[in-house]
Amino acid sequence: MATIREIAKASGFSIATVSRVLSGSENVTEETRKKIFKVIKELDYRRSQSIKGSSFRGIGVLVPDLKEDFYGMVAEGIEEVLLKNHFEMFLSTYRHSLEKERDALEEFFARKVDGVIVCTTYQDEECLEKFIEAGIPVVAVDRENTELKMDIVTIDNYASSLKIAKYLYDMGHRKVLHVEGLIEVYSARERKQAFMDFAQKKEDFNVTFIPATFDVKDGYIAIKKYLDKYGKNFTAIFFANDWMALGGIKALKEAGLNYPEDISIVGFDDSPLAKYLYPSLTTIKQPVYEMGLNAAKLLIEKLEGKNESKVKRRVILPTKLIIRDSVRKI
Amino acid sequence: MATIREIAKASGFSIATVSRVLSGSENVTEETRKKIFKVIKELDYRRSQSIKGSSFRGIGVLVPDLKEDFYGMVAEGIEEVLLKNHFEMFLSTYRHSLEKERDALEEFFARKVDGVIVCTTYQDEECLEKFIEAGIPVVAVDRENTELKMDIVTIDNYASSLKIAKYLYDMGHRKVLHVEGLIEVYSARERKQAFMDFAQKKEDFNVTFIPATFDVKDGYIAIKKYLDKYGKNFTAIFFANDWMALGGIKALKEAGLNYPEDISIVGFDDSPLAKYLYPSLTTIKQPVYEMGLNAAKLLIEKLEGKNESKVKRRVILPTKLIIRDSVRKI
Repeated sequence: MATIREIAKASGFSIATVSRVLSGSENVTEETRKKIFKVIKELDYRRSQSIKGSSFRGIGVLVPDLKEDFYGMVAEGIEEVLLKNHFEMFLSTYRHSLEKERDALEEFFARKVDGVIVCTTYQDEECLEKFIEAGIPVVAVDRENTELKMDIVTIDNYASSLKIAKYLYDMGHRKVLHVEGLIEVYSARERKQAFMDFAQKKEDFNVTFIPATFDVKDGYIAIKKYLDKYGKNFTAIFFANDWMALGGIKALKEAGLNYPEDISIVGFDDSPLAKYLYPSLTTIKQPVYEMGLNAAKLLIEKLEGKNESKVKRRVILPTKLIIRDSVRKI
Repeated sequence: MATIREIAKASGFSIATVSRVLSGSENVTEETRKKIFKVIKELDYRRSQSIKGSSFRGIGVLVPDLKEDFYGMVAEGIEEVLLKNHFEMFLSTYRHSLEKERDALEEFFARKVDGVIVCTTYQDEECLEKFIEAGIPVVAVDRENTELKMDIVTIDNYASSLKIAKYLYDMGHRKVLHVEGLIEVYSARERKQAFMDFAQKKEDFNVTFIPATFDVKDGYIAIKKYLDKYGKNFTAIFFANDWMALGGIKALKEAGLNYPEDISIVGFDDSPLAKYLYPSLTTIKQPVYEMGLNAAKLLIEKLEGKNESKVKRRVILPTKLIIRDSVRKI
């Protein structure tokens, strides 16, 4: 039902009068009562028409978490496009748990969503296959090529990471640590591989790889443990994301080391953090918001039949090395 | 329909055989074909039963943004409870725009959500009234008391801010800056008010208030402009959240000032940032995730009729002053 305020506005009577009519008070003329009920009927009719018009169309969106900024920005990009096209977003997080990931996808399926956008690992292929076989389009963000018939929006993680390796090499660094992202994640594997390949090509470039999970805490622990065990036998660190760089910088400072004077630092993502650290952080800018926008656009094209072809699309968005103040030439 | 893999597993035939049956190949015996189609029918029946069981129940959740960690954590808390109770979450962001906020609420209303959880400002009362009048329960996070019949989950922003004022006073600080949060937001007004009242009570405690918006950039600009204009005529800064503290610290360092040696710093929220800054940040810990959990619990109690009383509930969760390394005794 319409609100008292809306009824008063549409009928020209005061809120008090409308209120009296609705509460069944005797203190109103029959004429007023009739007029007000007529307005209520009209308003309700318009409401029911508008509900009819907006038949429910929903898109399931699955991200690992919302506790740092990355996936929140992807989700904001997706939402922007979905809303413009009158789709509702069902956003679920799976807290990096494969079991929760499968549950969430099952839930989407049972709820008969019209499409799915996933920012997930490779271990859920079987679940995604079910959507595709049922004719429900799926778009994946930041994922490697698979047999599945789904569009993918990503960046070139390998080339981006290679830019960092080359930049550090050109700045004179020869002994480098790489604090890895969660290795189940495609982007983490690609970033690592680029450094491995570059080190293989350049005989005088040495990289030590430290497993981690993209979490700020892991950046701290990785560097703390390494320094405790081996001391400062390196000149630069490449962290698989900016948040781990924040953690790692803390471990360095606790050990009395500063950046870029003692150790050079590079991150990845260009999160809001990177610009506001002091010294500011050299990093790779990912178009995170745009990845969300593009994923939603691909999905809607499929839903509206604008992309009739069965060819899988792989949209690769550009990245940029943002040189700030965290790397020193040696 | 079930996946080829599921059909193969349930029927005992190979994926290749199932595939041949589905594609209508001649290369299968009539018996095999019948068996496989029987399995498909059974699987589909089970599927349709499970869809029937999960009749659609959705909760609209409205937050200003997901680009920092605060509202993402609130949303994760809400989701945790909703999923356990078989509700779907419609998450919308309104990018701090009153117009988008109203649109999103209209959309929730048209979609006939079963309940609404809002992290919004006071300017949307009229929109929320409509839900309440229609019998759709509303729970608000971090909001002041209003005439509206809705439950509220919050912290005591005033008392928390007062803790900071007292702590700074006890540490010897007498000339303090407060970089405010967005003043349309209830929590920002309360945090400011506590400092104003404390300064009024203690004659030797001076506070300069600088308007800002909770955004990291604003923390930087506020301090940069202040230093340019007045120089370092204060000994401590209270930032209305941790992200603004990050920005402000950058401005201090650019001016050659360190914390806590030259200037003491206090933030608010205890975001992941606070612990990993170096020196680490003294701040108020808000139970952000728990605010989400509690909001969802209140809503579900209302929906399930466990809270029959018409009394509005105001749940105030505890905060804690986390003393780290960013304040010096002078």
